[in-house]
Amino acid sequence: MKSNIGLIGLAVMGQNLVLNMESKGYRVSVYNRTKEVTEQFLGKRAKGKKIIATYSLEELVGSLEKPRKIVLMIKAGQPVDIVIKDLKPLLDKGDIIIDGGNSFFKDTIRRSGQLEEEGLFYLGVGISGGEEGALKGPSIMPGGNKEAWEQVKDILVDISAKVDGQIPCCDYVGPDGAGHYVKMTHNGIEYGDMQLISEAYYLMRELLGMSADQIQEVFKQWNEGELNSYLIEITAHILGKLDEETGLPLVDLILDRAGNKGTGKWTSQEALELGAVAPTIVDAVFARYLSAIKEERVEASKILKGPQPKFEGTASQIQDIIHDIGSALYASKICSYAQGFQLLDQASQTYNWNLKLGDIALLWREGCIIRAQFLNKIKEAYDRNPGLKNLMLDSYFKDVLERAQDGWRRVVSLAIQNGIPLSSFSSALAYYDGYRSENLSANMVQAQRDYFGAHTYQRIDKEGVFHTDWIDE
Amino acid sequence: MKSNIGLIGLAVMGQNLVLNMESKGYRVSVYNRTKEVTEQFLGKRAKGKKIIATYSLEELVGSLEKPRKIVLMIKAGQPVDIVIKDLKPLLDKGDIIIDGGNSFFKDTIRRSGQLEEEGLFYLGVGISGGEEGALKGPSIMPGGNKEAWEQVKDILVDISAKVDGQIPCCDYVGPDGAGHYVKMTHNGIEYGDMQLISEAYYLMRELLGMSADQIQEVFKQWNEGELNSYLIEITAHILGKLDEETGLPLVDLILDRAGNKGTGKWTSQEALELGAVAPTIVDAVFARYLSAIKEERVEASKILKGPQPKFEGTASQIQDIIHDIGSALYASKICSYAQGFQLLDQASQTYNWNLKLGDIALLWREGCIIRAQFLNKIKEAYDRNPGLKNLMLDSYFKDVLERAQDGWRRVVSLAIQNGIPLSSFSSALAYYDGYRSENLSANMVQAQRDYFGAHTYQRIDKEGVFHTDWIDE
Repeated sequence: MKSNIGLIGLAVMGQNLVLNMESKGYRVSVYNRTKEVTEQFLGKRAKGKKIIATYSLEELVGSLEKPRKIVLMIKAGQPVDIVIKDLKPLLDKGDIIIDGGNSFFKDTIRRSGQLEEEGLFYLGVGISGGEEGALKGPSIMPGGNKEAWEQVKDILVDISAKVDGQIPCCDYVGPDGAGHYVKMTHNGIEYGDMQLISEAYYLMRELLGMSADQIQEVFKQWNEGELNSYLIEITAHILGKLDEETGLPLVDLILDRAGNKGTGKWTSQEALELGAVAPTIVDAVFARYLSAIKEERVEASKILKGPQPKFEGTASQIQDIIHDIGSALYASKICSYAQGFQLLDQASQTYNWNLKLGDIALLWREGCIIRAQFLNKIKEAYDRNPGLKNLMLDSYFKDVLERAQDGWRRVVSLAIQNGIPLSSFSSALAYYDGYRSENLSANMVQAQRDYFGAHTYQRIDKEGVFHTDWIDE
Repeated sequence: MKSNIGLIGLAVMGQNLVLNMESKGYRVSVYNRTKEVTEQFLGKRAKGKKIIATYSLEELVGSLEKPRKIVLMIKAGQPVDIVIKDLKPLLDKGDIIIDGGNSFFKDTIRRSGQLEEEGLFYLGVGISGGEEGALKGPSIMPGGNKEAWEQVKDILVDISAKVDGQIPCCDYVGPDGAGHYVKMTHNGIEYGDMQLISEAYYLMRELLGMSADQIQEVFKQWNEGELNSYLIEITAHILGKLDEETGLPLVDLILDRAGNKGTGKWTSQEALELGAVAPTIVDAVFARYLSAIKEERVEASKILKGPQPKFEGTASQIQDIIHDIGSALYASKICSYAQGFQLLDQASQTYNWNLKLGDIALLWREGCIIRAQFLNKIKEAYDRNPGLKNLMLDSYFKDVLERAQDGWRRVVSLAIQNGIPLSSFSSALAYYDGYRSENLSANMVQAQRDYFGAHTYQRIDKEGVFHTDWIDE
């Protein structure tokens, strides 16, 4: 009996996806480069299930019903090209390779083009939700040939996360690299969310001197309101977790050095490439880089002086500031999402993907790291106006920003006066103020460019392109 | 009689370089794809000079003494590859191609490697100073094979800008792509400088309601002090220029839509690539992108509300704020240069270039757009400590930042409260505060990453790598 689908790469994400598929009634063949991993998986987690071990690509391919569907859950980059090269001679026309890793979207565009020329299909499928999501239902962002998508649709929809237990967080996104692009942007937005949350936490800690459990209470409350989201929820959990050994809040014992796996970087580089303004996402990436040079910061902290953070106020004034921090967090979050969706909009035009931005928001409501009811608001905004240029212009978000801005301005000013860096809060605010400025300072920049480089300029009072000989004095 | 050097590409920059070389006693052969351009050049600006027109690459190559030296002043990208391909069969071992355009440094690395395999040399030479610099003496940043550099050294040094009329702004930078990389970073820093100056101007205009000629006075004064630089000087000139037709200040009639030619973007993408923290440079690039969507901003300005900028104060209070703006400008400039030099440091390690950072600063003292006495301070800082991790840690810069920071904080807060976007001023301040923070908020980010993705974390109280099963409640 042939298997319905195959999967290559049995690291935890791969194993969990296999178990997820099997639990939905599919018979799955698996292959891993290192044989022992396969044996161990079959001996334990896969035991007694409709999971078939194979020990060569030939065996894997031979075990699958046609058209064959093979999921790759391997390291992005060259390993994917190597596996494709080895698989190709074994496959028949119409077979489908499904790349479920975080491949760079330009690789996906290249690979799907090359494979289609040879009669094969290559779907670039973004999968988000970490290990737990992979097992219980991730958010899935499939891109590639639509015909091939129809062939794998049932399986991917079945294993995906469901909103209210029924609406799948899996729907066709667009051609070639669109799925991986949307996943990449999801991760960029995730970087922004995490940095903003950490800045809210940081301000309560550094300025208000609050303890982990006091801050936990705030996050719990926030999770009941408009900030409700998976990341706010786990932040509250984290703040409540005590170190088993010392009994101290574990978060206070964790070193402030954050890693990254490159998708936030890609999102930032792409924004720069396409001319999309995404400072809050970029600053979240830079915040991680800055965190990584811990020793250098420790050294610098001894040399570079600044104000000593202090806040003296009544309990009710502290409550007011906490409220302001919540406003700043929500407003900044909206700016960050506005940047991410603006990037998707730009990418859709640049790469001819015809992305449905509102529908993409819906894919992220469950299964993935940025899941939140908030995403419905984004869908509603695009429903109200499918040609919406920027989320901030939507009536709902506009109102939130207007309501939030006084507190937001107070919080960022307070941090600046106290020498507390809130790079993403403040860059989000500069983004808001910049975007709503009819007149910016770029007339000066353009005058300078014309002065030293004869780059020309436009005028506000007449059409045309002008150059001035500035040095006639 | 053979020519000393050849040049391909007779746009204004190319023409001016030819005239510059000729004025230093060199005989120059020229070639341009469009014949008419060559004829026009020879008939006018080159008339009566030791400049030889050629009308084919064969003729050009044939007219040169050996080893042949051929400068390319053509559009970066594919055109360079095409000319190299056409030139190659005509050249002999040891001949040298000098790419004087803004080529992407990775292209330069690739081309110099390929050509050296075939016995030819390819120097990637950054040339800055615009049209005027090209004619009268640009800043020159040569990279590539050192032997080949020795062959062209005399000519390049002769045509370069001179400090105090004698010290040339031209010295070997490093292997393969180093010259173009340094030029790229120079441009990134230039973006930062221009944006910061424009924000200082903007605040005086929008918050203090000052007229162009009032602001001009401030820039004139600044140019007498530590801010002294070419860009501050031309900003004062610009503010004094009146429109011939209306008699109004010309800068007030220029549309606030700034263009860009991509080198600021490359610098930003490279910073992201190498893990170098460069928010002020990136925000300067984003500020140009934001300026470019003028219609969208006009629309948004009608929808998104904010505070009405207003400042009511005595003349002396206004003087205080202007003083603070100067402090903010100088401090932010230091942060921006710190980011640029940190990027160069990182690149030097990554690409094995052994860049002499202090010497690079000296190359920019004359000829180029960011020229300023200020660059001597950078050289002095690296002389004091060749292993300096960050310019801000140097005693001179540290003192400036400490003196400036109160005013800097006041200015950024004031702008935030008045809804005036100062993206680069505020991102520079967040950079300063972040860099000097022993403890950042990244412990929370790292806890979140461990929570949802088992990415592990380090601790402050013991060595090792840890993972917590956070969901045991």
